[in-house]
Amino acid sequence: MSVTFAQGFSAAGVAAGISSVEGKKDLALVVNNGPLDAAAGVFTSNRFCAAPVQWSRKQVADGHVKAVILNSGGANACTGVAGYAQSRATAEKVAALVGTEPEDVAVCSTGLIGELLPLDNVLAGAETAYRALAATPEAGADASHAIMTTDTKPKTVELESSNGWRIGGMVKGSGMIAPQLATMLCVITTDAVVTAGQMQAALAVATEHSFNRIDVDGCMSTNDTVLLLASGASGVEPDKDEFNRLVRQACASLARQIIGDGEGASHDIRITVTGATSEDAALACGRAVAASNLLKCAISGNDPNWGRIVSSLGTVPPEVAPYDSEKVTVDVNGVRICENGGAGRDRSEVDMTPREVHIDIDLNAGDAEATVWTDDLTHEYVHINADYES
Amino acid sequence: MSVTFAQGFSAAGVAAGISSVEGKKDLALVVNNGPLDAAAGVFTSNRFCAAPVQWSRKQVADGHVKAVILNSGGANACTGVAGYAQSRATAEKVAALVGTEPEDVAVCSTGLIGELLPLDNVLAGAETAYRALAATPEAGADASHAIMTTDTKPKTVELESSNGWRIGGMVKGSGMIAPQLATMLCVITTDAVVTAGQMQAALAVATEHSFNRIDVDGCMSTNDTVLLLASGASGVEPDKDEFNRLVRQACASLARQIIGDGEGASHDIRITVTGATSEDAALACGRAVAASNLLKCAISGNDPNWGRIVSSLGTVPPEVAPYDSEKVTVDVNGVRICENGGAGRDRSEVDMTPREVHIDIDLNAGDAEATVWTDDLTHEYVHINADYES
Repeated sequence: MSVTFAQGFSAAGVAAGISSVEGKKDLALVVNNGPLDAAAGVFTSNRFCAAPVQWSRKQVADGHVKAVILNSGGANACTGVAGYAQSRATAEKVAALVGTEPEDVAVCSTGLIGELLPLDNVLAGAETAYRALAATPEAGADASHAIMTTDTKPKTVELESSNGWRIGGMVKGSGMIAPQLATMLCVITTDAVVTAGQMQAALAVATEHSFNRIDVDGCMSTNDTVLLLASGASGVEPDKDEFNRLVRQACASLARQIIGDGEGASHDIRITVTGATSEDAALACGRAVAASNLLKCAISGNDPNWGRIVSSLGTVPPEVAPYDSEKVTVDVNGVRICENGGAGRDRSEVDMTPREVHIDIDLNAGDAEATVWTDDLTHEYVHINADYES
Repeated sequence: MSVTFAQGFSAAGVAAGISSVEGKKDLALVVNNGPLDAAAGVFTSNRFCAAPVQWSRKQVADGHVKAVILNSGGANACTGVAGYAQSRATAEKVAALVGTEPEDVAVCSTGLIGELLPLDNVLAGAETAYRALAATPEAGADASHAIMTTDTKPKTVELESSNGWRIGGMVKGSGMIAPQLATMLCVITTDAVVTAGQMQAALAVATEHSFNRIDVDGCMSTNDTVLLLASGASGVEPDKDEFNRLVRQACASLARQIIGDGEGASHDIRITVTGATSEDAALACGRAVAASNLLKCAISGNDPNWGRIVSSLGTVPPEVAPYDSEKVTVDVNGVRICENGGAGRDRSEVDMTPREVHIDIDLNAGDAEATVWTDDLTHEYVHINADYES
């Protein structure tokens, strides 16, 4: 289903010979058939942002995008003027095919940093993808496969509102995942009748509460892109609150799927910090715990090591998150193994067999809370990232 | 040699039955026989600091320490009032043995967080250690062995000044190593005639440029302690600059040895950032690169992955480190594989066989520089930390 679940969108995913994996689908095309072409976008804050990010950020700024072309097999990052020319040439090709201006075409790339793309393959692939465009579930699924890199499965979302308008979406991302954003490309489509301004506001909030609160490995990518496109094909103007809620729900679902497919992960770890003096304080504590390699290793060994949780909490400066270390409690999978900053119930009581691990930290300092997600750190993560060609 | 290299110090290292490893030396005692008992200390900034840190920080504050007792096999961290009482009881025992006040005894512990120590074993071990005290190289070596946990080798330093006064030292630390400080216990001794104030100033600068610039795994400990003790036994008042320089050199040597023994590490990575607008800017960039799990995995796979270097650099906010991403160069082991923010010479030219890997980053934005050290991230690191009992 993916991006074609919303009316007014066609998609394709084809093998264009960009990826080093023979025959892998590596080029996706998503076309907004209207009547609207409203768009919003959120991009990486990495200062070495890739050529396609530079291109797309500029084109999305006016709130109009007619088509998005995405490739795996190469990030086109740190490629200078030549890389930017490749993104532009790709947009020009798609524009000619679908009958629009290059300025209404967004470009997304993911893969190795520092190398130019095989442009001939990209341009020929764009033609193949254009011919394969369809509004079918299969075409949406093909697109979601074509953007995968170290992902082991496609990640999609489909939501239907109370009065018939829809949201569809796809994301790729598995490693180099950290706030802000992640090594991820995400396209969300809707057939609601909405303005670009309304979409940008909804997307900013949704991203802040989803993609910006997951952390696989603390590494921020050069290529992160989240696009939201509206066709208006349902003819329905959504209730504003419901629109915001469903965009947020779509992002949350896709972000959760990224954690579920984190490189080499054997546990998905949900860290909820309550009792904080502010949401920022709760978030800072959650992120500090999520970033602990020692804790992530312990979880991969099925050890609910609360010492590694509190020692990470202890690195957050008091001015960022005021709390009294002797009042902190930590529950892992519902067992309070740390009470008043010291040992609580025996950690042997904790059942670590489920894939999902819940760490609930109560700072007992206020009423604010926040949740972040991370993965455990496994032999397989090291294997993937020691042996993945740069 | 270790701490007994300086005149006026005796030491011992004994097996006291604290460690879960049968027969392992796990208790060290260092006694300052004077005539001076001047002392300085630097401690973890972790808010969950351990009971021995709370005790020792208070006792060192007046600039006098007569003896230090250190144990491996248990951190006595997150152990509340009962843990603090253990540190106090340990200090009282040592004070009675060596004939001083408990307030002149520092206590250091390392090992598992969240459990009380077997106090009877600690107190009996203190007696054994007291009887074994000697000013010999062997006694110093025993002490340096007794503080080891996941360390694979003892780490010591011996320096002699131009006019005969000496510095000796020992450190333990292998994992949970990150600025500020590391999971490390360090005792440095000198027979120079110096004041506590002079020592504190020298130690603060030396720590900032050594232990605070190494990062094995981004995890800050609850127990980090660096102590500097002066006996004055040489009778020599050192040149102030030489004293500062040798303290700094001792800390640098011990910090470098920690990196050389980082948990599971197969490469020691030196990251030098030059051309920064300030030392703080250079340091922020160096630390961002040192913290990248993706880069550390790549290095363990002998891949000089400059994309992962610049994408880490790109996460440092412009207000912290102003630079133009298109002017950045990166050399790995002397080969400029990134030029003007893009691909430079082919990475196949880089010889990755040496254990020591040099990453030289030129921001081309100013004249300041800084160096940080880290280790690569290996299967063995995950193994150690997934299977090490909490």
